[in-house]
Amino acid sequence: MNARFAILGATGAVGLEFLQLLAERRVAPSNLRLLASARSAGRKMPYTGGELPVEQVGPDSFRDIDIALFSAGGSTSREWAPVAVAAGARVVDNSSAFRMDEGVPLVIPEVNPEAIGDAKVIANPNCSTIIMNMVVWPLHQRNPVERVIVSTYQAVSGAGQQAMLELESQTRDVLDGRPARPSVLPVQTAFNLFSHNTAIDETGYNVEEVKMIKETRKIFGAPDLAITATCIRVPVLRAHSESINVSFGRPMDATEAREILSQAPGVKVVDDRENNRFPMPIEATGMDDCLVGRIRNDASRSDGRGIELFVCGDQLRKGAALNAVQIAELLVK
Amino acid sequence: MNARFAILGATGAVGLEFLQLLAERRVAPSNLRLLASARSAGRKMPYTGGELPVEQVGPDSFRDIDIALFSAGGSTSREWAPVAVAAGARVVDNSSAFRMDEGVPLVIPEVNPEAIGDAKVIANPNCSTIIMNMVVWPLHQRNPVERVIVSTYQAVSGAGQQAMLELESQTRDVLDGRPARPSVLPVQTAFNLFSHNTAIDETGYNVEEVKMIKETRKIFGAPDLAITATCIRVPVLRAHSESINVSFGRPMDATEAREILSQAPGVKVVDDRENNRFPMPIEATGMDDCLVGRIRNDASRSDGRGIELFVCGDQLRKGAALNAVQIAELLVK
Repeated sequence: MNARFAILGATGAVGLEFLQLLAERRVAPSNLRLLASARSAGRKMPYTGGELPVEQVGPDSFRDIDIALFSAGGSTSREWAPVAVAAGARVVDNSSAFRMDEGVPLVIPEVNPEAIGDAKVIANPNCSTIIMNMVVWPLHQRNPVERVIVSTYQAVSGAGQQAMLELESQTRDVLDGRPARPSVLPVQTAFNLFSHNTAIDETGYNVEEVKMIKETRKIFGAPDLAITATCIRVPVLRAHSESINVSFGRPMDATEAREILSQAPGVKVVDDRENNRFPMPIEATGMDDCLVGRIRNDASRSDGRGIELFVCGDQLRKGAALNAVQIAELLVK
Repeated sequence: MNARFAILGATGAVGLEFLQLLAERRVAPSNLRLLASARSAGRKMPYTGGELPVEQVGPDSFRDIDIALFSAGGSTSREWAPVAVAAGARVVDNSSAFRMDEGVPLVIPEVNPEAIGDAKVIANPNCSTIIMNMVVWPLHQRNPVERVIVSTYQAVSGAGQQAMLELESQTRDVLDGRPARPSVLPVQTAFNLFSHNTAIDETGYNVEEVKMIKETRKIFGAPDLAITATCIRVPVLRAHSESINVSFGRPMDATEAREILSQAPGVKVVDDRENNRFPMPIEATGMDDCLVGRIRNDASRSDGRGIELFVCGDQLRKGAALNAVQIAELLVK
């Protein structure tokens, strides 16, 4: 990919994926600038056999940069996106800072690439939102979705690299009979699961669930789409799973849904009923495609307008870095 | 509890819980006979400070027994329940062998104790069915449930004691960089999750899901209840969690649902939005009560007739042994 890139947040879990994805796309080291906060500046990151220094982000960081990939949290995005844009870069932001801003396109390249237009800042949706809509959107294209009820099984990687290390070390502690001492995540993750650790609003929904609801409506251009979500963290390292119940305006059966999904870009159907092989997070890990299976008619409906699905997608790849790099590819085109 | 008990399957995960629950209820060792297959016969099980021998089940095993608690699999139940009944015992069966038989009551004591009547064989429902209906039933009593959409997060204990040991040893292997070698469960459980390992029928539902659907209809006496289920195993040791979306015939809001559930027997509301404290399997483990929280209005409905819930219950206690012992208590009364 021939453009000059900056990565802000180069040392985090998503940053590491950015490096791998840009290397796969043969971005020359001379076309890549790694940026981070003062805390991480000075480190060196391996890249295509060599090393790249991590510089502290500053007013001159985005000079001569075409595309800046941001993954360093909302407040960092709010501070530096205007600086990057003023320097002439286009920003693909992985934080939630700008996602719901009216002028900012919220993009899944397989869903709404046309939304990008000439925007200077493009927002990358929430990981759970992306993974869900990789399968809901293709169905919606053929038969308008009327209602979505989703329950997630989210990996700890969504809370960053430290949360992944914590799951491993805490699991070892618990296996050895030592007490779990949660620090990155608020409660025990080892052999446990819990409601997503984001604030609950007055309706009882947490921030992650509200993201899934509002972002889906924005991406689909369907402000009244009926959707509810329950977001749960599970002791899995880096791929999210989601149990999705979808209702349609017209009848849709499992055979038709499977056929649509088997042709959907970025989606792989894993739905072997005979051998009981369905999507699993360890198999989605490191994969670009989202895996979908358990495709069946909703047993709770007699009108043939409901489908049940189970999807797994790598939270760090399609749920974050890959989606952002795909947006960058559209910008370069 | 003053009656003469036999436990068939005394050395399994549920059998161990039976022993603990009967000890808590001061059943004298002289009133307790432990039975198992030839493979486990001859072992000794600790009981109230002493030890009880495990005898091989045979034609004379149920002489002088009032109540036989069975938890040794469906085929064992089919073989020995008629023998126990012929000897004058009443059987509480934890397997799926008789659950859907017309003359056999399927009982959750908090839901349908009256179904027992003078039945000689009483079936204990599936663990996921029990835990779900501890919270759905009290709501249904106040406002008829029209539709249930459930996604489960099931502990490995449902596959027995060996599956729990496998999760622990396999997790250690994976942490130490060794390959996972699944044996009790068909795929890797460590840091993974997967569609429930029971056969899939022609509709695409697995046996566990069909149990949740059909058993709920039987227990509720509602043969047409609209219900669908997605059953998933997670790397948790022994408490099941369930994300439940319920629709009602009339409006029901979260405040009313919370008030109903706070008075429901065997249920504890854990729903602290401010501190983000909700039910977790490690907190439900070893508890008699099922924990319920995340009680909120379904954001996908504008008619006020939907509620979202999250419940956790100990699979071996309320999901199996405790429910059976509660049935036994009703039989003794």
